Amino acid sequence: MPSKNATKITADKGKQEFFIEREFEAPRELVYRALSEPEFLVQWMGPNDMEMRIDKLDNRSGGSYRFVHSLCNGGGEFGFNGTIHEVAAPERVIRTFEFEGLPERGHVSLEFLTLIELPENRTRLMVQSVFKSVEDRDGLLQSGMEGGLKEGYQKLDELLASSIVNN
Amino acid sequence: MPSKNATKITADKGKQEFFIEREFEAPRELVYRALSEPEFLVQWMGPNDMEMRIDKLDNRSGGSYRFVHSLCNGGGEFGFNGTIHEVAAPERVIRTFEFEGLPERGHVSLEFLTLIELPENRTRLMVQSVFKSVEDRDGLLQSGMEGGLKEGYQKLDELLASSIVNN
Repeated sequence: MPSKNATKITADKGKQEFFIEREFEAPRELVYRALSEPEFLVQWMGPNDMEMRIDKLDNRSGGSYRFVHSLCNGGGEFGFNGTIHEVAAPERVIRTFEFEGLPERGHVSLEFLTLIELPENRTRLMVQSVFKSVEDRDGLLQSGMEGGLKEGYQKLDELLASSIVNN
Repeated sequence: MPSKNATKITADKGKQEFFIEREFEAPRELVYRALSEPEFLVQWMGPNDMEMRIDKLDNRSGGSYRFVHSLCNGGGEFGFNGTIHEVAAPERVIRTFEFEGLPERGHVSLEFLTLIELPENRTRLMVQSVFKSVEDRDGLLQSGMEGGLKEGYQKLDELLASSIVNN
């Protein structure tokens, strides 16, 4: 079932950043938990045809993470990793991001995740990603990221509506 | 004595990044050590009227750092900190940077340091800093950073020429 909440991606031409906005039908504390606790993350993050595994998640200022997405048909793995500059729960996380599938290392971006409380126990997630170059940004946008993001948020909708996170 | 090597800062109007370029009369391994080992860092980093203290430096991929500059006249302290995304010694370090003296947190930038070997045992340091906004970039450029940077590199020239690092 399509969500009533659309995923909005803004990428102005020639800029080395993009913005993602998505609202959720759940209070901020709950959305924050679903975004930061391993047992919830693995249930929603990534496209529908992949399984997610958390290789490492040290979710604190000065920490780091490594996530791995595997194609359910055994077709391959995609890792990404980064350091966590700041965790200001439940409103902000600032972290680096690097996709490990590129031909060379060093194409790192910086992500600012912000959770804003809305009326009626709703929450807006805002993500700003800042890149080394416009080409790095466009490469990620063209990698199929958008589809996986939307599918993931749809799974997150379902998780937030279920009793699993609410209890 | 003014250095023969100029510090070049490039900040195109409207972009959320700047570039620093500076050459040194020393081989790359040596410049890398002076940039990454605490006992050498404290001898050159920062403007002439400040002392530098290393609160933390865990210099590895996934590590973090915190440096403090104190005015020699007792006028105050300036801290900055970040996480270290990647250390690929002696050629590349990628790390976040946040100046702690701002009115609010969250104005973080991402730094790419690259050391390039030049003929005749010389080295070029290239720094790219990518910011959350053009305003954040311009704010740092207008903070007096440039003067402190040039004074610091001049001290680094002297350190590299001395026997302290060479042995």
